Amino acid sequence: MAHDAVAPLLLALAVILAAAAAGGWLAERARQPSVLGELIAGILLGNLGLLGFHGFENFRTDAILAALAEIGVIVLLFDVGLESSVGDMLKVGRSALLVAALGVAAPFALGWGAGAWLLPDRPVYVHVFLGAVLTATSVGITARVLRDLGQATSAEARIILGAAVIDDVLGLVILAVVTAMITAAGSGGGVPLLAVAWIAAKALGFMVLAILLGSLFVRHALRWIARARLPGTLLTAGLVVCFALSALASAAGLAPIVGAFAAGLILEPAFFAAFEETRRGQTLRSLIQPVSAILVPVFFVRTGLLVDLRSIADPQILGVAAALTAAAWIGKQACMFGVLDRGINRLAVGIGMVPRGEVGLIFASIGLGLTMAGEPIVTPPLYAAIVVMVIVTTLVTPPALQWSFGRRRGTAASARSAP
Amino acid sequence: MAHDAVAPLLLALAVILAAAAAGGWLAERARQPSVLGELIAGILLGNLGLLGFHGFENFRTDAILAALAEIGVIVLLFDVGLESSVGDMLKVGRSALLVAALGVAAPFALGWGAGAWLLPDRPVYVHVFLGAVLTATSVGITARVLRDLGQATSAEARIILGAAVIDDVLGLVILAVVTAMITAAGSGGGVPLLAVAWIAAKALGFMVLAILLGSLFVRHALRWIARARLPGTLLTAGLVVCFALSALASAAGLAPIVGAFAAGLILEPAFFAAFEETRRGQTLRSLIQPVSAILVPVFFVRTGLLVDLRSIADPQILGVAAALTAAAWIGKQACMFGVLDRGINRLAVGIGMVPRGEVGLIFASIGLGLTMAGEPIVTPPLYAAIVVMVIVTTLVTPPALQWSFGRRRGTAASARSAP
Repeated sequence: MAHDAVAPLLLALAVILAAAAAGGWLAERARQPSVLGELIAGILLGNLGLLGFHGFENFRTDAILAALAEIGVIVLLFDVGLESSVGDMLKVGRSALLVAALGVAAPFALGWGAGAWLLPDRPVYVHVFLGAVLTATSVGITARVLRDLGQATSAEARIILGAAVIDDVLGLVILAVVTAMITAAGSGGGVPLLAVAWIAAKALGFMVLAILLGSLFVRHALRWIARARLPGTLLTAGLVVCFALSALASAAGLAPIVGAFAAGLILEPAFFAAFEETRRGQTLRSLIQPVSAILVPVFFVRTGLLVDLRSIADPQILGVAAALTAAAWIGKQACMFGVLDRGINRLAVGIGMVPRGEVGLIFASIGLGLTMAGEPIVTPPLYAAIVVMVIVTTLVTPPALQWSFGRRRGTAASARSAP
Repeated sequence: MAHDAVAPLLLALAVILAAAAAGGWLAERARQPSVLGELIAGILLGNLGLLGFHGFENFRTDAILAALAEIGVIVLLFDVGLESSVGDMLKVGRSALLVAALGVAAPFALGWGAGAWLLPDRPVYVHVFLGAVLTATSVGITARVLRDLGQATSAEARIILGAAVIDDVLGLVILAVVTAMITAAGSGGGVPLLAVAWIAAKALGFMVLAILLGSLFVRHALRWIARARLPGTLLTAGLVVCFALSALASAAGLAPIVGAFAAGLILEPAFFAAFEETRRGQTLRSLIQPVSAILVPVFFVRTGLLVDLRSIADPQILGVAAALTAAAWIGKQACMFGVLDRGINRLAVGIGMVPRGEVGLIFASIGLGLTMAGEPIVTPPLYAAIVVMVIVTTLVTPPALQWSFGRRRGTAASARSAP
């Protein structure tokens, strides 16, 4: 690469990082998650053409920015995986599993139905894909909002986070199955049930294999690497596991993010006890934080950049966006019936599962790249509608969650103050 | 970017990071700087074709890996710049300035002479370029070796580091002038003296402007940004300044690394006093460390990857490598005559200026991209000879520096123990 070629990339990174920081700051000031500000900053940058400025339009097609965004989302899912352990996933009770199952099934059915109702002329795969897009809760946004509300260790939080993790895995499996069905159908062949079963088996098999690998091989390999006492190896070792499992997931026909998430789940702090960095009080998550602070906003700003505001102006698309948003919201309210324990704020659980954030957007961007009969499964206007759904569910959750906890606290407080 | 397209990149990153860590570990065990191990790891990966394995050969031509390596070296020079301040550069006395001037002039003349002697058939620009390649000391390697020897705050260390900083700036100006001369000559036109003066003025003007910008604009802008109290903005603000100045340097006809280095010089810890991160004990350098731990090895491993061992087997190239190495070593010994202060270990200063490391390799890789009459200024075999020079000067410095300090300590100890 000639040195002149890198200058536009550096300028793009400077603009994107500055826009992300400004957007995040404005969102925080408006008491919203900063991811929302990053998305909106990207939408604004990408649509300056409406005001006659076309200087940033090449950001949409730049292959290196696209690759950096991909690495960013892989690092994000790795980090989300690191927040949980395989043990946490097994420990969360029947409630979390039932909440997750209802929270996947209901939005999937409603999304499929909304697609069939509003886009009757498009293939059934588009409707199924829309259902899949609505399944996965954004565990990052949920966790962040709960922390902001001081509810991070509440029973509600444990159920929501446990369910969101299971939810992500189920969603990723559904995505893998739906994507493979579409690829198979696109290449002319039918979709034999056996093939679908094989894909689902492969996806779950990958997760099981990754978890076994973690308990057996990775743990020992890391202990061996820790003996090297070379500064910097903790982060390198973590990211090598992440990138290698992401590539392996891709080789198994899954999205690379499945591998990144699995890598995060299997790596546990105890594996790193012997590293120099651990003695200095650093953790893999604290070391990844600066890396993700730079790469993750590139993903969200670029996600916003891909939104073409002219396509949103289409009333049909606005209708699809409204229907998808309603399906996303109502679908996740089914979660409250999954709470088996007593004394739980069921309303908060239902609302806490609503935000779609990154995973929904990743699904949508995968849909942009899938084609059937020469047309993408997710057309640019449909993509815009999905982004509107993500923005609205993300925007609506923090105040709604705050309200659901405050309402209960208010009731409890007045009960206590009563004679 | 389709998700399938990112898998080879992830695999490449996993292989490169693992190879860098293994190479760095072996180098440290052999009491050598880890950068040496990363270079050798890259050379091995890139030449597995000699053993019949061609799986990694696409790493050489991958545009995204090349871009990540570029960002890596920009982050490295930014970090090196952060180690010094504009004040440090002004404070270092006449000794450092004279050491730097001699340490640039002598290797430049010797490199030019060696080129003219060994490659008489190639244009004079190739000889001049070889002189430029030999000018800049690798401040990173020098600083690291001094720290390892417990000499980081000695008078010798202050002179070496001060001179190495000035050295880098002089080297970058020389590179800019030589590159522009070659570009002008390559496009058919002659090289009027006025144009050369203009390039040098532009390079120095950029440094002065960047420094003024730092004292006036950036300081105030950062104070204003710190008020946002948004977590993560310290690193983002630092990298936005770095990337923006790198792009600006490129727009001014300089290498982007000049801008990155200038950005590092102008950013001082005091600018960040009001940031949230500062209160938590984090600094810009501590936050950049994980980012550079991932990106910098990509640059050095890729640098090794570009070495074709078959070209080194050529006896003429081995001769050029030996002559360049001798010119590089002898040229920097001129530095000892620049030390004006008394009681300084002049031998250590001369040896401490020897390692070329990253800057020499950056110059060489720029030379690979410059063409004249259809032929690159630095042909692949000549590039291999430069890499050999970098490896030898890097390899030889740590033991030599250790010897020069030990020898003096030994003398001092025996003098003290004498009656």
